[in-house]
Amino acid sequence: MDSRRVAVLDRGTVTLVDPAAAVFSAFDLGPARGDGVFETMLVRRGVALKPEAHLDRLARSAALMGLFSPPLADWARLIDLLATTHADGEAALKLMLTRGIEGVSDHTAVGTLSPLAPDVLEQRRRGIAVVTLTLGLPADLRATSPWLLGGVKYLSYAVNMAAQRHARALGADDAVFISLDGRLLEGPTSTIVWARDGTLHTPPLEIGILPGTTQALLFTRADAAGLGTAMSLGTVADLHAADGVWLVSSVRGAAAVTSLDGLRRGDAGLTPTIQELTGVTT
Amino acid sequence: MDSRRVAVLDRGTVTLVDPAAAVFSAFDLGPARGDGVFETMLVRRGVALKPEAHLDRLARSAALMGLFSPPLADWARLIDLLATTHADGEAALKLMLTRGIEGVSDHTAVGTLSPLAPDVLEQRRRGIAVVTLTLGLPADLRATSPWLLGGVKYLSYAVNMAAQRHARALGADDAVFISLDGRLLEGPTSTIVWARDGTLHTPPLEIGILPGTTQALLFTRADAAGLGTAMSLGTVADLHAADGVWLVSSVRGAAAVTSLDGLRRGDAGLTPTIQELTGVTT
Repeated sequence: MDSRRVAVLDRGTVTLVDPAAAVFSAFDLGPARGDGVFETMLVRRGVALKPEAHLDRLARSAALMGLFSPPLADWARLIDLLATTHADGEAALKLMLTRGIEGVSDHTAVGTLSPLAPDVLEQRRRGIAVVTLTLGLPADLRATSPWLLGGVKYLSYAVNMAAQRHARALGADDAVFISLDGRLLEGPTSTIVWARDGTLHTPPLEIGILPGTTQALLFTRADAAGLGTAMSLGTVADLHAADGVWLVSSVRGAAAVTSLDGLRRGDAGLTPTIQELTGVTT
Repeated sequence: MDSRRVAVLDRGTVTLVDPAAAVFSAFDLGPARGDGVFETMLVRRGVALKPEAHLDRLARSAALMGLFSPPLADWARLIDLLATTHADGEAALKLMLTRGIEGVSDHTAVGTLSPLAPDVLEQRRRGIAVVTLTLGLPADLRATSPWLLGGVKYLSYAVNMAAQRHARALGADDAVFISLDGRLLEGPTSTIVWARDGTLHTPPLEIGILPGTTQALLFTRADAAGLGTAMSLGTVADLHAADGVWLVSSVRGAAAVTSLDGLRRGDAGLTPTIQELTGVTT
């Protein structure tokens, strides 16, 4: 049986459609140009985790792209409808918003629910080998170049996907992007977090990275638990020197980095605490 | 009447489908990740112009992305079928190839035919105002960083579209991307060509730009006509000092740059010759 679900949001109405059917026109600027934004969240036992954080970020991405976005209350109903179809275990819920079809519509809004990829649970449990790859840009450039869409979670992820394929070709599981001047940026689909002497660090948003919803939740809870948190311009050397390094994202949660550019590394026993604080445990 | 057409290529069979119908699944990695490649060519009186050059580049883009591509003979039949539906005037014919649906198919192949946007003919006739925008990367970086997909005509064009929106917000018609170190790269949907002292120049492919099919045709014919041609690392100063500057692309042809970063400029009367050599006249 097909456990995937697809819902379309059209003028305030949310409709579940056949998951095997097509939903995007060939003239839609989403598929035609990657001109749209998205969010992916975890669903556990029929409930989407931190939907408000994802909807806030979706609205922010849409605004930065000059995209129309339907009211968040409509998206919230779409999320609820999809999430409640999945009462057992975990699933990935994705929202996609495109610029629509020129001359026909100003947006297309779609949601999907999919089973987790098998390697997600594996990577959550066992950790991941990571390689660093340059994104080629200076860390301070995107803040002054809005057309480069720093901080926008857009559908144009070809480079992100190519970076993950390149990492796998090198025998690793995932990548971390580095700026031209050697600053840590983010993973292709995750935020970088590292721990040093009882403080959690993550790069500042000013360098044009996405605001991580899972990193934000982790840092809020870490603060409440008495751990230090800091936004820090880091380097690869900082990751090698750290007590632990994680790539955090909504569906995988916190994946411990067990190898960085071929050098094995530990987590000082911190991973269970980090995963507990992210709310996504193995 | 809907003058748009859509054709789907599936296991060697080309089928015209309802242009108002959807063709991409929400799970297709094209719309979901911008993970695919495309080509756009001009159709005039039922005939596609330089289809072989576009198919060569499509195959090259697919290979650089590690994408499966159907046999070029199948694509050629799709092109013929779409082109022959448009006997009068001009139209834009687009090919799209995606990575397909994970676990279901390894590609999706679609073609569309659309009327030209009204501003295309206008820009061909009157020329365009252009602004330069940084792409943020050093000119020599993409040659050694294959995950950045330099030279790949991918579906992830959100930044290209944002650059054109930014240009229009500045009162211009289009943009030219510049490398971090000040080298001319390309337009968001075009190749840069400039003339100086009887020689046509365009940037070399080594800096990670797309091989322009219209620029290639123009240079071949210019060589035959006794004009000089050169691949040159240029700067914005070279454009200001040039006798003429054009953004060349398959559908618009050669659009004369009449203003660069707010400074008006001429074409030394060369535009009719350049357009004649590209095979796309007003």
